[in-house]
Amino acid sequence: MPTSSTPAEKKITLASLGEFGLIASVTAGRTQPASTLLGPGDDAAVVAAPDGRVVACTDVLVEGVHFRMDWSTPEQVGRKAAAANLADVAAMGAVPTALLVGLACPADTDVELLQGLTDGLWAEAEAAGAGVVGGDVAASAQLVLSVTALGSLDGLDPVTRSGARPGDVLAVAGRLGWSAAGLAVLGRGFRSPVAVVGAHRVPEPPYAAGPQAARAGATAMIDVSDGLLADLGHVAVASGVVVDVRSAAFSVTGRLADVGQALGVDPLHWILTGGEDHALAAAFPGSVPEGWLVIGEVRAGAAAVLVDGRPYEGGPAGWEHFSR
Amino acid sequence: MPTSSTPAEKKITLASLGEFGLIASVTAGRTQPASTLLGPGDDAAVVAAPDGRVVACTDVLVEGVHFRMDWSTPEQVGRKAAAANLADVAAMGAVPTALLVGLACPADTDVELLQGLTDGLWAEAEAAGAGVVGGDVAASAQLVLSVTALGSLDGLDPVTRSGARPGDVLAVAGRLGWSAAGLAVLGRGFRSPVAVVGAHRVPEPPYAAGPQAARAGATAMIDVSDGLLADLGHVAVASGVVVDVRSAAFSVTGRLADVGQALGVDPLHWILTGGEDHALAAAFPGSVPEGWLVIGEVRAGAAAVLVDGRPYEGGPAGWEHFSR
Repeated sequence: MPTSSTPAEKKITLASLGEFGLIASVTAGRTQPASTLLGPGDDAAVVAAPDGRVVACTDVLVEGVHFRMDWSTPEQVGRKAAAANLADVAAMGAVPTALLVGLACPADTDVELLQGLTDGLWAEAEAAGAGVVGGDVAASAQLVLSVTALGSLDGLDPVTRSGARPGDVLAVAGRLGWSAAGLAVLGRGFRSPVAVVGAHRVPEPPYAAGPQAARAGATAMIDVSDGLLADLGHVAVASGVVVDVRSAAFSVTGRLADVGQALGVDPLHWILTGGEDHALAAAFPGSVPEGWLVIGEVRAGAAAVLVDGRPYEGGPAGWEHFSR
Repeated sequence: MPTSSTPAEKKITLASLGEFGLIASVTAGRTQPASTLLGPGDDAAVVAAPDGRVVACTDVLVEGVHFRMDWSTPEQVGRKAAAANLADVAAMGAVPTALLVGLACPADTDVELLQGLTDGLWAEAEAAGAGVVGGDVAASAQLVLSVTALGSLDGLDPVTRSGARPGDVLAVAGRLGWSAAGLAVLGRGFRSPVAVVGAHRVPEPPYAAGPQAARAGATAMIDVSDGLLADLGHVAVASGVVVDVRSAAFSVTGRLADVGQALGVDPLHWILTGGEDHALAAAFPGSVPEGWLVIGEVRAGAAAVLVDGRPYEGGPAGWEHFSR
């Protein structure tokens, strides 16, 4: 006798739970960090900004563009959305304090999915020392996540893109190319190696390296979200300098080398052009702090990014939305 | 001879201009307030938070749900999106300092529309004393605007929803019912009277009344976004009090009375249940500051909102997304 199937449980959707029900469900039982002076539940939150300044940035992620629900769990999507913003705060030399989340999604979205998303946002915020202090939800045709991150400079000057000077040493903290390798694997229908696929699903930005670089006197810094060369291009233009990357600086071994061999791709291409790992790239006037890898130098000249002294010929240098 | 028609000019879309082109186009030539220490163009902005705290909130607006591009100009949509957030900051007793904008829209969106949106965001931010300090744009199926507002309490305590006490006087600053009347007019295919239609397109929150109420010792405050009774319900629950509104407090005259008569609706219904005017409602322990209208009182008892001592029977008390 076949096992009798239980009647399909009716899923709880956003429409059935309602806006306020969802908000109650995803805010209950969370522990806010000390910097959250007033958390969710009022017209606005209040967050500590101890040195009288607050760092703030916003990133938008769209289902099908920035993530696929069949490639990632809701929690992974939440972590990734949070990481993209928290890394921007770190790239100014600041410590993340808070996230606010604008969510638009179809009314028939399963509340479990939204709880997973929120769990992911919380997990990544906590990893960076921040809390989720507010947000809003509305009905839309497609899932869109707009995350705002706040941070504290703790008395340091913000490290912008425009301060790199000829003679500075160029260095990175964090992984490069792993997310691009993971995306290539997923795009060919594979689900392993887990290490690179996981790197695409959930980046691991080196949050602490941002304030570390600021304390060490970094002259310019950026978070690698669109690809190393593309993002260094912003530093080159803003600072009016030549940024020259030395390809031999990257030792391509282990997983990245294996995946490259399996897919017939030179992993250096992923390292130079792959986005979404949210490594930090910075220029330093002298020695480089512990944990940072020297990858090149800053020279005088018309703004340009070079690899081993020449323009990189390996393909499009980065990812820009909407461009054809 | 008929005037020869010029060939249709090819519109510039987000896809043709690109993400960075759009950002350059909408940030050029703007004047930031003094509170913007570092404006758009880097990984994150830096905003002044003079008393060591920052007020922060996020609102999401979706085309077809919160606004219609055939009922409003892009600039009006931008103003409304900004106003909804800036009013939340004011409702804490704070002065708005900055907006960040997460925008998702179809790749074939006309850049003129996006410039109009941005002009509206800037106009409303400036009206409240704030600047637009950052944002992000991504491709999506539907236009979604997620706006985050920041503000400064300037040394005052935040005014929450939970401080109302029996004996407090209930008062409002700003208009009530005008946006609902305008929506009713538009919904029946009319475009006038301009005063109420305009109120639906662009609310006029009384930003300065927020800090004014905080200085006057307001015990609780909320921004009327979902309807007076619905929003007072949040105050009643958070404070554990009865909020009793006196209907005779509202003098229904002029435009609102005319429109009510023309459409066969009692304007009091719009005043009590209409959202989106972003008036401020507050409880005061004693006298009410200039410009505020006394509309009722706070009493001891199980949390409830009453009108003239009784539950309001005039229909659904407010607007909740997703509810059936």
